[in-house]
Amino acid sequence: MPGVIVDCAMYRDGRRSPAPEDFSDALDEARAVGDAFLWVGMHEPTEEEFEHVSREFGLHKLAVEDALTAHQRPKLEVYDDSLFVVLKPVVYDDDADTVATGELMVFIGDSFVVTVRHGEGAPLAAVRTRLEQEPEVLRHGPTAVLYAVSDAVVDHYIEVAAELQADLEELEAEVFAPVPPDTRNTAARIYGFKRQVLEFRRATSPLLAPMDRLASGTVPFVHDHAKPFFRDVSDHLTKANEYIEGLDRLLSDALAAHLAQMGVRQNDDMRKISAWAAMAAVPTMVAGIYGMNFDHMPELRHAWGYPAVLVVMAAACLGLHRLFKSRGWL
Amino acid sequence: MPGVIVDCAMYRDGRRSPAPEDFSDALDEARAVGDAFLWVGMHEPTEEEFEHVSREFGLHKLAVEDALTAHQRPKLEVYDDSLFVVLKPVVYDDDADTVATGELMVFIGDSFVVTVRHGEGAPLAAVRTRLEQEPEVLRHGPTAVLYAVSDAVVDHYIEVAAELQADLEELEAEVFAPVPPDTRNTAARIYGFKRQVLEFRRATSPLLAPMDRLASGTVPFVHDHAKPFFRDVSDHLTKANEYIEGLDRLLSDALAAHLAQMGVRQNDDMRKISAWAAMAAVPTMVAGIYGMNFDHMPELRHAWGYPAVLVVMAAACLGLHRLFKSRGWL
Amino acid sequence: MPGVIVDCAMYRDGRRSPAPEDFSDALDEARAVGDAFLWVGMHEPTEEEFEHVSREFGLHKLAVEDALTAHQRPKLEVYDDSLFVVLKPVVYDDDADTVATGELMVFIGDSFVVTVRHGEGAPLAAVRTRLEQEPEVLRHGPTAVLYAVSDAVVDHYIEVAAELQADLEELEAEVFAPVPPDTRNTAARIYGFKRQVLEFRRATSPLLAPMDRLASGTVPFVHDHAKPFFRDVSDHLTKANEYIEGLDRLLSDALAAHLAQMGVRQNDDMRKISAWAAMAAVPTMVAGIYGMNFDHMPELRHAWGYPAVLVVMAAACLGLHRLFKSRGWL
Amino acid sequence: MPGVIVDCAMYRDGRRSPAPEDFSDALDEARAVGDAFLWVGMHEPTEEEFEHVSREFGLHKLAVEDALTAHQRPKLEVYDDSLFVVLKPVVYDDDADTVATGELMVFIGDSFVVTVRHGEGAPLAAVRTRLEQEPEVLRHGPTAVLYAVSDAVVDHYIEVAAELQADLEELEAEVFAPVPPDTRNTAARIYGFKRQVLEFRRATSPLLAPMDRLASGTVPFVHDHAKPFFRDVSDHLTKANEYIEGLDRLLSDALAAHLAQMGVRQNDDMRKISAWAAMAAVPTMVAGIYGMNFDHMPELRHAWGYPAVLVVMAAACLGLHRLFKSRGWL
Amino acid sequence: MPGVIVDCAMYRDGRRSPAPEDFSDALDEARAVGDAFLWVGMHEPTEEEFEHVSREFGLHKLAVEDALTAHQRPKLEVYDDSLFVVLKPVVYDDDADTVATGELMVFIGDSFVVTVRHGEGAPLAAVRTRLEQEPEVLRHGPTAVLYAVSDAVVDHYIEVAAELQADLEELEAEVFAPVPPDTRNTAARIYGFKRQVLEFRRATSPLLAPMDRLASGTVPFVHDHAKPFFRDVSDHLTKANEYIEGLDRLLSDALAAHLAQMGVRQNDDMRKISAWAAMAAVPTMVAGIYGMNFDHMPELRHAWGYPAVLVVMAAACLGLHRLFKSRGWL
Repeated sequence: MPGVIVDCAMYRDGRRSPAPEDFSDALDEARAVGDAFLWVGMHEPTEEEFEHVSREFGLHKLAVEDALTAHQRPKLEVYDDSLFVVLKPVVYDDDADTVATGELMVFIGDSFVVTVRHGEGAPLAAVRTRLEQEPEVLRHGPTAVLYAVSDAVVDHYIEVAAELQADLEELEAEVFAPVPPDTRNTAARIYGFKRQVLEFRRATSPLLAPMDRLASGTVPFVHDHAKPFFRDVSDHLTKANEYIEGLDRLLSDALAAHLAQMGVRQNDDMRKISAWAAMAAVPTMVAGIYGMNFDHMPELRHAWGYPAVLVVMAAACLGLHRLFKSRGWL
Repeated sequence: MPGVIVDCAMYRDGRRSPAPEDFSDALDEARAVGDAFLWVGMHEPTEEEFEHVSREFGLHKLAVEDALTAHQRPKLEVYDDSLFVVLKPVVYDDDADTVATGELMVFIGDSFVVTVRHGEGAPLAAVRTRLEQEPEVLRHGPTAVLYAVSDAVVDHYIEVAAELQADLEELEAEVFAPVPPDTRNTAARIYGFKRQVLEFRRATSPLLAPMDRLASGTVPFVHDHAKPFFRDVSDHLTKANEYIEGLDRLLSDALAAHLAQMGVRQNDDMRKISAWAAMAAVPTMVAGIYGMNFDHMPELRHAWGYPAVLVVMAAACLGLHRLFKSRGWL
Repeated sequence: MPGVIVDCAMYRDGRRSPAPEDFSDALDEARAVGDAFLWVGMHEPTEEEFEHVSREFGLHKLAVEDALTAHQRPKLEVYDDSLFVVLKPVVYDDDADTVATGELMVFIGDSFVVTVRHGEGAPLAAVRTRLEQEPEVLRHGPTAVLYAVSDAVVDHYIEVAAELQADLEELEAEVFAPVPPDTRNTAARIYGFKRQVLEFRRATSPLLAPMDRLASGTVPFVHDHAKPFFRDVSDHLTKANEYIEGLDRLLSDALAAHLAQMGVRQNDDMRKISAWAAMAAVPTMVAGIYGMNFDHMPELRHAWGYPAVLVVMAAACLGLHRLFKSRGWL
Repeated sequence: MPGVIVDCAMYRDGRRSPAPEDFSDALDEARAVGDAFLWVGMHEPTEEEFEHVSREFGLHKLAVEDALTAHQRPKLEVYDDSLFVVLKPVVYDDDADTVATGELMVFIGDSFVVTVRHGEGAPLAAVRTRLEQEPEVLRHGPTAVLYAVSDAVVDHYIEVAAELQADLEELEAEVFAPVPPDTRNTAARIYGFKRQVLEFRRATSPLLAPMDRLASGTVPFVHDHAKPFFRDVSDHLTKANEYIEGLDRLLSDALAAHLAQMGVRQNDDMRKISAWAAMAAVPTMVAGIYGMNFDHMPELRHAWGYPAVLVVMAAACLGLHRLFKSRGWL
Repeated sequence: MPGVIVDCAMYRDGRRSPAPEDFSDALDEARAVGDAFLWVGMHEPTEEEFEHVSREFGLHKLAVEDALTAHQRPKLEVYDDSLFVVLKPVVYDDDADTVATGELMVFIGDSFVVTVRHGEGAPLAAVRTRLEQEPEVLRHGPTAVLYAVSDAVVDHYIEVAAELQADLEELEAEVFAPVPPDTRNTAARIYGFKRQVLEFRRATSPLLAPMDRLASGTVPFVHDHAKPFFRDVSDHLTKANEYIEGLDRLLSDALAAHLAQMGVRQNDDMRKISAWAAMAAVPTMVAGIYGMNFDHMPELRHAWGYPAVLVVMAAACLGLHRLFKSRGWL
């Protein structure tokens, strides 16, 4: 089963310690010792690969099914002999300005933790490394692992939300630029942004209830004194969620403002165009008049007639130009 | 009563077993055996056809009325001696890109299940076949049937939602295409899509409360240990519902973006048209001037006057063309 | 008091039976018999007309005030010795496509029912006739009357909602017609429709809580075993309500789509107009050129000059026509 | 302290009765008598003016602060020895079509009522006069005063809402008029109306919870048997609130419809203008052609050439006119 | 640790009194005395600077982490031996018309208060000064400090909301001005305003639940008799919140009205432009006709032909001008 099990270790008193290779033996030993637990980390296992693990740890059939398929909702399930938590870590792609969600399942039971990761964005290795450097935290067993993992996931939400905030500011600059670079795509960009936000929300919003439950301290397999820690995570999650909802609302407002902006610009362009057209229409009309073939048009016979008319035309154009300028049409 | 009763069988210990043809006798036998139950499947029965069944199984008058008329809301009714559940399976029509809802009523009582199907989209035959291949599930009796049916219906919701998601992506491509194929129908398509989503929601959203109740394990005639299974269905249902609500919101946004897009395009077209009009107005004006009948217009007498004016006209047009190009108007 | 009291009868064991003319005597008799009750039906009584009735039956002062004035909200009031229910029946006027709401007050007490009707749309006579044909229902006394009345009112909601749905479909056809008949009124029609829906909602939405209370079986003067019946009414009411909310949302979407549609059409019209204008501008410009009075314009002297220019003009127009056609502008 | 205390009287058994001038003595007497209470009515007292009263009646410091400053939210505060209720009466200014809110604070304690009025719109004098004519109501003491005051305030809400409804109908007539009188201000009027509605809502919506509490009969200093009366007020308040919310929604819809209407009108105007422009362009083009200076233009030499061309021009204009008429463009 | 600790004092019986310089000693003394407490005020401490304080007072690790980083949500955390409250004071920048939020953390425990301020806008110094002048309030210890601080913060919310209201009125004047000064930025201004309001809401809205909890009197370390005071703060907070929500809604409406307004103005401008174009088109057409080169055009030979045509042109222009004026197009 190499490649799928990313890491598997026994922790005794907060420190990595040698353990029998067989899960069953290791689990028995951990349970015998009391202050020890087993942490198995897996990456996109297939049904067969996961079968062994789930049987050894006695994981519930439905949770196992969920763990094998990606695209789960964040949730917390309490079974008779284990706890199942689904988290959706979020990754921000700097180049495409998009948000991708992965999946992170955590099984917690008596003396064991199994973590299963789908897709990118799960900061499991970093979390394990950090925890191994803090034996006084890791000593609290599976609860500490669950806390550390959810804390890392939720903290990352806030970072990604901040990146989206920066993106929004770019977008705002584009929408309200005095000379818009190319407005053809603004609506598409706002819309695309809204989709990102919706995707993000699907990760954060359903997690609120499970986190509240963990923070209430009434979940089995979770230490009671971890309450304030989960409350802290829950609080950060609420903050991330409010942030995202704010983004969503601002995007709607930005779209409406873009619409209004387009209307203003359209009117400005139309008036400018019309002003120029009016300035061309006047000489054309005057020229038409002196192009008439009446026998008796004294001006036509006058030596200064032609230059005078040219001057009149130019003066009319200039006058209109000034008038339009003063009215702000040009 | 042929044609209406699609299938009727007695299950003993999870396996189809012979039973008396008469409902009453069969039911008595099933009750006597203990670990057995009767499953009657019907398709759009008339009042007379259903009367016999409802009398034999002691179904409640109001539930029977509901079972005979289609267009019910999804619901869960607990009567003294039976449980009545209405589900609304959804079918996606690939050609028309539309969603059709059927009805699926399930009566559950002591040692019997009656399923009544209206319209298309009820995966009952497939569910029965699958259950008959899993005797260890079917052994749990009517509860297992209810679980299998609702699981199948809800899983199909998610599939249909995914199809709608694909449709949405097509629509988005249409809305934000640089050269729109034919925008005359985009608003109509978005609106039609919204209607589909509303129809879909009418099937999924009222089912949330009944599913939660089944997942809470407090419903009579439903085995307590089926709780996690119904919780799983409830969870999938919530996911389908969130999905659909997301679709709905995105469609609203798409409509708003389409409106903004139309504004941008309108402005672009208007400026393009005006630019060409301006380019035609200049030579017309110049020609007007030299069409005047003044006696003293020296240019007219000049041998090179005509070609020079033609060159001026062409140069003016070219100059304007370049100016407009550089400003992005053409 | 003739004309106001529409009908007044004593029911014994589910059947109309002779009773003393005086309310007081009749009520005493009904109470003495036990299985009997008095049903008084009134139509828009004045204060004086109602005074006698309310005193005899000991109706609460506040309920009496409500019963005398129309424009009440649907509600359920429990007083010490009577129950007061306000329903708002809805009538659909086929010609005007409008919805009108009436009022229907029901007082229920120990052995009596008083129904007061304001405006049109109260199906009381029909309900009484139907109930008198079902003695086994009417035997349940005032509770049966309340159920029958509310069932009739709520069922009518669903019918009216279906009529509005049909109206919506007409409206949709108008909004999305390829050649709109006369769009000047579409927005007004959608708005007017929204008002109808709001009016309708004022009748259905406040009734939800009272119906839930009746369905919970905790209301005095209402038989406990009527619970599933009121639950059924409550369920239909919820359905009607969801229907109407769906209508409301669709109307908002239709208005937005209409706006988008208008934008598309405006752009289409503008481009078409501009295309024709461009086609007229070209010959005008060419004619202007050959109308210039230069001495040396060789084309003017040529015998084929004129027909050649005409051909050029026609060719330019035709060319533009084709170009515009191919771009979908014409 | 003249001018601030509008009225101050002792009521014994529902009737105004003589009382010592000093509050303290009067209060002692009222408490001694048992069935008596003191009602002090004040109008915009200053801090000093109110100090005496608040000390005598032992009013809570915070409530006193609130009573001195206007712009409070409607609320109900229960203190150890008094009850403090803030109501916001609403006045409709017929000329300006605006809504103004005042403030009305009621302190209720053992054997006393203090009412403080800020701004216009508090119907206190009328309420007192009416109550003094109904000793059987006033006999219930402070509770009766609180009921009468809140009933008067809430009933006035419904009247004002009806006036706003009438205003809305005027506005609708303006929005959907076939020939709009002057649409320049329609958006401003709708917006101004929305502000009125928001102002109104600030008065009614926060009062819902306090009224529900009074209707639940669990508030100290309020007689238990006044429950149905406060329930009635609460019910009317809910109705007023629903009314206002309906207005708000309709105004949003009216604004959207106005937008759509503007679009339709804009398109109509544009097509009309363009049609007339097209009708002028055709003779201009024809005239241009016959203004060309070709030597060989046989039509020019023809005696009927000129009238024939005039006829052609007129015919073209007429033909276009008919075409446009038939297409509904003119 | 100078510069970070803004002020540190022992209060005995509501009055500043000398205390040992060392926290630990001071705290011991305060606890020994009973009616005394220590108040330490800090400004943006670093981790090291805060470490000493947090260790001495036994502050919870998570609260300490929060106190060190700005950008927290308003909240109330109850730990075993202390209470942690985060407030977000809001400052209005008059020049930029923007809203800035700071942070204010309050730790309350047995006989001590620690306040930590981040950013501007925390009125701590003023609160301390005012409290020191009211020994009868300060006597209530840490609870009084928490009340005074939250009261000051919330009262400032209402002031800032009033300033925003004034800004809104300016904006409204701009949106609905008959001659708009420069509409190019109106949408941007409304949008920017909405952002301010969102920022503001992030400060006020999450504080509602903590304030309600404080007002319920069930929070440890907070005196029970402070209930009405916190209820008062809670009430003001609710008012501020409703105010802000009202602003937000009005801004959405203003944006929609601006859009409608733009449409009206666009139409007005377009008609005006077209009217002038039409007035120029008529003389051009007439001149074109008399510029035709027909041999037989009797008018051309007439001595009064030219002036007559000029008069006709002028008359046509004047007539059109009047017509357009009367129709409100000019």
